[in-house]
Amino acid sequence: MAIVPLLDHNTIVLVRQFRQPAGRVLLEIPAGTLEKGEEPDDCARREVEEEIGYAPGLLTEMFHSYLAPGYSTEMLHTFLAEDLRKTEVNRDTDEFLEIVTVSLEDAVRMIDTGEIVDAKSICGILLASRLYKECK
Amino acid sequence: MAIVPLLDHNTIVLVRQFRQPAGRVLLEIPAGTLEKGEEPDDCARREVEEEIGYAPGLLTEMFHSYLAPGYSTEMLHTFLAEDLRKTEVNRDTDEFLEIVTVSLEDAVRMIDTGEIVDAKSICGILLASRLYKECK
Repeated sequence: MAIVPLLDHNTIVLVRQFRQPAGRVLLEIPAGTLEKGEEPDDCARREVEEEIGYAPGLLTEMFHSYLAPGYSTEMLHTFLAEDLRKTEVNRDTDEFLEIVTVSLEDAVRMIDTGEIVDAKSICGILLASRLYKECK
Repeated sequence: MAIVPLLDHNTIVLVRQFRQPAGRVLLEIPAGTLEKGEEPDDCARREVEEEIGYAPGLLTEMFHSYLAPGYSTEMLHTFLAEDLRKTEVNRDTDEFLEIVTVSLEDAVRMIDTGEIVDAKSICGILLASRLYKECK
């Protein structure tokens, strides 16, 4: 489950965190794991609130994707979260996240420069960027 | 290791194959695994030839990405392969691939319609599409 949270048509909220398997700090879109019996959109709503402290007024599934279909069954649903209302960051105690707000153009630029190297985030940012370019 | 093989500035070669973990047939960019001691660009060259039967004249690393940095160390290098010269498909006997040639615009459309749902392919196609749009 991943979320592209947009504050407005051109501002995205990202999270920066140390990723043990990668051995480095990564800048990503918020993401989390479905709890047993939880619906994907309920999970997305919960994760947006837990990770960045916003409640989404509008939640739309953008796309789903297989991360490593050669060896993993994992399929990731990615939602667009809009009409965000500030609540409070209600984070799991084992999570240390820095919240980073950038324009969509800057996020795309950070893909080009290699500052964003997480596959789900690259997909989400590029698709959101296309969506809003087409709407302009 | 993944490859975006372009026949010209607007034509991409994809592979369609049954993916056991996903339990379905997926349309993807060609990809493979580094052999012991192999350099990433040598692997990319070998995989393009093995999977789609072309030798790339020009090979450029486009980006690298973590597929699942929350639990996996895997980092995927993705190359742009251009100036393709037809050789013969020299496939591992356990691979059953169908080669599919489409325009970059159609590949992007297939992401929008959910016909392409593999994360590395979504990243590679959208980045190649931006690259060539900007050059036009």
